[in-house]
Amino acid sequence: MSGNRAWHLMSRPQGLPTHENFALKAQPTAPLQDGWARVENKWLSVDPYMRGRMNDVKSYVPPFQLDEPMQGGAVGTVVESRSPNLKEGDLVFHMLGWREQAAAPAEAFNKMPPLPVAEHEWLGNLGLTGGTAYFGLLRAAQAKEGDIVFVSAAAGAVGSAVVQIARAKGMTVIGSAGGADKCAWVRELGADAAIDYKAGPVLPQLQAAAPKGIDVYFDNVGGEHLDAAFALARQNARFAICGMIDDYNKGSTHQFRFIMRIIAMRIMLKGFIYTDYLAEMADFYREMGGWIASGAVKSRETVHEGIEAMPDAFLGLFSGGNTGKMLVKL
Amino acid sequence: MSGNRAWHLMSRPQGLPTHENFALKAQPTAPLQDGWARVENKWLSVDPYMRGRMNDVKSYVPPFQLDEPMQGGAVGTVVESRSPNLKEGDLVFHMLGWREQAAAPAEAFNKMPPLPVAEHEWLGNLGLTGGTAYFGLLRAAQAKEGDIVFVSAAAGAVGSAVVQIARAKGMTVIGSAGGADKCAWVRELGADAAIDYKAGPVLPQLQAAAPKGIDVYFDNVGGEHLDAAFALARQNARFAICGMIDDYNKGSTHQFRFIMRIIAMRIMLKGFIYTDYLAEMADFYREMGGWIASGAVKSRETVHEGIEAMPDAFLGLFSGGNTGKMLVKL
Repeated sequence: MSGNRAWHLMSRPQGLPTHENFALKAQPTAPLQDGWARVENKWLSVDPYMRGRMNDVKSYVPPFQLDEPMQGGAVGTVVESRSPNLKEGDLVFHMLGWREQAAAPAEAFNKMPPLPVAEHEWLGNLGLTGGTAYFGLLRAAQAKEGDIVFVSAAAGAVGSAVVQIARAKGMTVIGSAGGADKCAWVRELGADAAIDYKAGPVLPQLQAAAPKGIDVYFDNVGGEHLDAAFALARQNARFAICGMIDDYNKGSTHQFRFIMRIIAMRIMLKGFIYTDYLAEMADFYREMGGWIASGAVKSRETVHEGIEAMPDAFLGLFSGGNTGKMLVKL
Repeated sequence: MSGNRAWHLMSRPQGLPTHENFALKAQPTAPLQDGWARVENKWLSVDPYMRGRMNDVKSYVPPFQLDEPMQGGAVGTVVESRSPNLKEGDLVFHMLGWREQAAAPAEAFNKMPPLPVAEHEWLGNLGLTGGTAYFGLLRAAQAKEGDIVFVSAAAGAVGSAVVQIARAKGMTVIGSAGGADKCAWVRELGADAAIDYKAGPVLPQLQAAAPKGIDVYFDNVGGEHLDAAFALARQNARFAICGMIDDYNKGSTHQFRFIMRIIAMRIMLKGFIYTDYLAEMADFYREMGGWIASGAVKSRETVHEGIEAMPDAFLGLFSGGNTGKMLVKL
């Protein structure tokens, strides 16, 4: 039995967060109210979008409150229930992460369907990251068989799923990642080419890998990558804008030299969030479940151990410290 | 009877074009081939997109060739025909502008339908500029009744049509223009508010004019205006990207501080060209013809006189020298 501690946001980061912004505090373990359940968390997720919630700015999710437990994706087991809808031992996904135990109304906890997958997949390819890849590529960017797809942060949690979904759907895929090891893994996932953005400018590398240009760009980073995609977009190219991690900490300072090509090439850009497509989750579970079962979509995780490691795991997202999904195992 | 001279591009401009880039030269008047016609031009159009054709870069239209007559929208009268499809006196629209006379296969000339409009409307609200406004607003940006629409260069040829179409369709419209006189005209066209970008930064002015934010942005200029639109876009906002005149001469050097809002607000950007919608011209002629007849859409022109004035008219586009459509009358 673990303890009952939670990470609080103690001050709002300026630029890149530091350990001083966070504090691990004991939570009171109050008796459950009627209709509530208590969950012991087993896996906690860290994701780039959490950086936005550390600012005091209204975005698509409200900001974290100061000196309150932070939130995020988590998978855990029900240890106590005063709701007819959950029983002890149920495996649930929920958003009360950054803590060892979560107590809340039963509706806050989603019981997972009995698919033969590892528990942490519900935070990965079958969770927010896999769903983001699936809906961004196939819905926001309307990618289809035969398209030439470029994806940034291709060794990351979302990007590696994009690479594999694109391959499973008969597209050509070029992935960008930082360093030779990550690029090797991107190729192993099935990418036709991998670009090492740490080895030199993106544009000439992308031009060599995609001499005919690109039809789809899945953007996780913004900045130089987005500009290279503008430069090499073919007519009627579609960009799914999922993240701009380059700019989360500093604001965008990139000068988009090729943004004018939006007009000549009739480029469409579409920002999206996973939750825009909740009505289509059945499609996602069916297809992604099938690909995981067949081995078409594999996962890799970078796992930190113990609640104490949460800030390190989170900060690692911004230094390129992960291959695949970054997780904390309790 | 005028002469037969044509403006040639003599050198490719670096940045803003100057008179030295152009030369007015006599054209030979050769006998007509079978199936050809000769047209005496009466009105010539200058448009911002022509700047792109002066670069030696493949775009949506091929570059102008050096020491050849340039091209552009023109309205003229058939003066000689060796085609059964055209006869002397026919009013035609065609793309062999920048010259006094044009000789070409009859297919190059489009006979205008007999609508009760002034001849130069075929270069304006019933031509490329009106069509660009119509299709950009209603198709590319999918603007609909009740939307809050922001349009830049609202006193220009395309922008002033956007303002009036938006009003005719029951939208709220905020237009941006340079100077008090142009802003007054934008209001006269029916805009709910006009912003003077020369009087101060765009963002605070737009925020005051659109305290609830915007649903649609019709972009003619890029740069600071586009960034202000990112800053104030509401959820599911749509941007029609028509032009980036701020950047045609210098390349974009703007830093888009608010581009990240594409994600949180699920903004859609779509680049487009008038010719993408040729299949829907019947809708355009019907609706726009009706609005012109009813007075819902008015036009204003800035007219230069004589073939010699073409470069001045063209350069005036980049110094804010026109209100409404810039034309040269021969």
